[in-house]
Amino acid sequence: MRRAEDHPSRRAFLGAGAAVLAAGLTAGCEPGSAQPGGEAPATIAPVPPTGPHQAGIILPQEAQPNLLAVVADLADGVAVGPLLAELGAAIRTLTAGTDARLLGLPPADLTVTIGIGPRLVRMADPSLPGATDLPEFSRERIAPHARGGDLLVQVCACDPVVLPIAAAALLGQAGDRARERWRQSARRGSTVPVDQGITAPRNVFGFIDGIVGPHTTEQRQRDLWLAGPAPVAGGAIAVLRRMELDLPRFAALPVAAQEAVFGRRRDTGAPLSGGAIAADPDLGAKTPDGRYLIPADAHLRRAHPTTVGVGLMLRRSYSIDEPAPGLLFISFQNDIRTFTSTLTRMDNGDALLPFTTTTASASFLILPGFDDQRPLGATLFR
Amino acid sequence: MRRAEDHPSRRAFLGAGAAVLAAGLTAGCEPGSAQPGGEAPATIAPVPPTGPHQAGIILPQEAQPNLLAVVADLADGVAVGPLLAELGAAIRTLTAGTDARLLGLPPADLTVTIGIGPRLVRMADPSLPGATDLPEFSRERIAPHARGGDLLVQVCACDPVVLPIAAAALLGQAGDRARERWRQSARRGSTVPVDQGITAPRNVFGFIDGIVGPHTTEQRQRDLWLAGPAPVAGGAIAVLRRMELDLPRFAALPVAAQEAVFGRRRDTGAPLSGGAIAADPDLGAKTPDGRYLIPADAHLRRAHPTTVGVGLMLRRSYSIDEPAPGLLFISFQNDIRTFTSTLTRMDNGDALLPFTTTTASASFLILPGFDDQRPLGATLFR
Repeated sequence: MRRAEDHPSRRAFLGAGAAVLAAGLTAGCEPGSAQPGGEAPATIAPVPPTGPHQAGIILPQEAQPNLLAVVADLADGVAVGPLLAELGAAIRTLTAGTDARLLGLPPADLTVTIGIGPRLVRMADPSLPGATDLPEFSRERIAPHARGGDLLVQVCACDPVVLPIAAAALLGQAGDRARERWRQSARRGSTVPVDQGITAPRNVFGFIDGIVGPHTTEQRQRDLWLAGPAPVAGGAIAVLRRMELDLPRFAALPVAAQEAVFGRRRDTGAPLSGGAIAADPDLGAKTPDGRYLIPADAHLRRAHPTTVGVGLMLRRSYSIDEPAPGLLFISFQNDIRTFTSTLTRMDNGDALLPFTTTTASASFLILPGFDDQRPLGATLFR
Repeated sequence: MRRAEDHPSRRAFLGAGAAVLAAGLTAGCEPGSAQPGGEAPATIAPVPPTGPHQAGIILPQEAQPNLLAVVADLADGVAVGPLLAELGAAIRTLTAGTDARLLGLPPADLTVTIGIGPRLVRMADPSLPGATDLPEFSRERIAPHARGGDLLVQVCACDPVVLPIAAAALLGQAGDRARERWRQSARRGSTVPVDQGITAPRNVFGFIDGIVGPHTTEQRQRDLWLAGPAPVAGGAIAVLRRMELDLPRFAALPVAAQEAVFGRRRDTGAPLSGGAIAADPDLGAKTPDGRYLIPADAHLRRAHPTTVGVGLMLRRSYSIDEPAPGLLFISFQNDIRTFTSTLTRMDNGDALLPFTTTTASASFLILPGFDDQRPLGATLFR
């Protein structure tokens, strides 16, 4: 075992002067090897902001450990198209590290993901995906300001200090045109490899979260990305739900009872029906005395796409410890019913649900990717 | 430059079954090298909870990137001594990884630091250090519940998910005897080496924070640790202040104007009078045309121990992005006047102060270290 004193500056970077900043090494993410010669250590790989999809959904492949989500409303009469185009331009200068508003911090793997809420989608075209407000569900305790919203600014990075700075720059770009409703800071802890290079983090119940999902290109084409109409093709529907988790009550359960709630092993993430973490659960498997290995009310069973009869949901959730221990649930899918049908099914007897209280809820049309030829939000608003 | 796809699981650990958890590798802190043979990767060094001082003040030497501070009040009539002894015992099982309430997560470098507020100190002995409430200062906007408090539970770790779990276990231990007042989740970003193995992080203004402090053993004996009386020897006085920082207004300044506010270079942290980051500022140095290199109202000058006439203050602050971008200022010292005199001096013309609004404020007597022979809080309360 290595000891702390062997690493007096284990998250620090060597170098002097401007090179320190240029190095781009941030705490928390793959520290570069120190270069005694004063050379810049290895940097964290940047994530291109442009392309067919926005960054922050499947890129980087392993989600950064820090996230800040800000939900804002737009003022009446705001020209949405120009605002989105400006945000796209700001995302490019921020992630390129050429934006003075980043105060000299290296952006490294900063990603920004922009979504628009149902009201704005309806303004563009009420027949578009994302035009419908999320319904109310059970176990919600949501203040009016924390339900819905016009604009999602999701910022992720290895360096947690980059998040509020980048968000402030983007909100500053919007200026009086946007008014913040709520924000949530969140984190991912240790992760476990699942499959196809996908990893999943542990939540505050100690269980691995987000194992099942559209991990292959084919699955993503089918269940994640919107295929059309043209102005939204390459986008997705996002659901954000902040939920408090009843940690004292859950932690008081024996481990076997905790595992029965999830339908998975706590240590490995394997389904209680056996196999590796990524194994398909055998929902019919029973003990010799006839009980389901994955209980009838286990979360894995109730929320499984096969049970619900929907496509795969990409979950990229983050844990929170404020205002209370919990989860900032984040899912991406190309059909809002993937989420609503799953939660409806959970409402009818998922053992995990009674441990949750949802305190914020919103859905957004995540805009398609953008580039030189196609500004963010182009063709949706003119 | 390395690319993300070369590191499909860069924060993940290899292994299977229970070995995954036993490995103890957490996101964000010195990932161990993957062991293709399935062996456990290197772990993060644990921090002993016992000793002459509590952990989380100068140990680990580099503060962990994640912090959760919870401030609670005690119910009337609570037997404080037994409660503190129980908390100390819980800290030992939590940090040893033998506490089921940690839900199987490896504690790794988890530290817990316990402080008691002025009301409790006065109950023990009104003549003790820490018995006086912090006065009000300018630029405060503090809700009643966010001023003062009886009990500080400061939890720090590399793995952010460990924080709410450990805090819930400790608050659960207190049960009805404690009532939470406020909590703040906070983070440190990239750090820069300062001196003596000490590193300092950047704040949300992009400047390096916490450069000057008691970094040597001699300085710590003189200015950090309480020498007596016996029940508090080895303890310290902590000040916690949550402050919002006016990021839009600061970021709009030219870099030279930002540097004049701090009195330091933004990139290197060096004093504007020259030298390396750890160099003593030359407060008398002037330009050829007679202006101070470190302006009269620069934070470095106004808050410098030499200017204020106090001892060195150990700052171990963390950045926040919620409820707004800012700083959870945390200082440790053996005389509350080290803090109050500094802030009074800043009130009289520190250029940084107008960019701050303090929204929570409390001071605590940090209890001395504990061990088998000396339970936490022993001899203070009987």
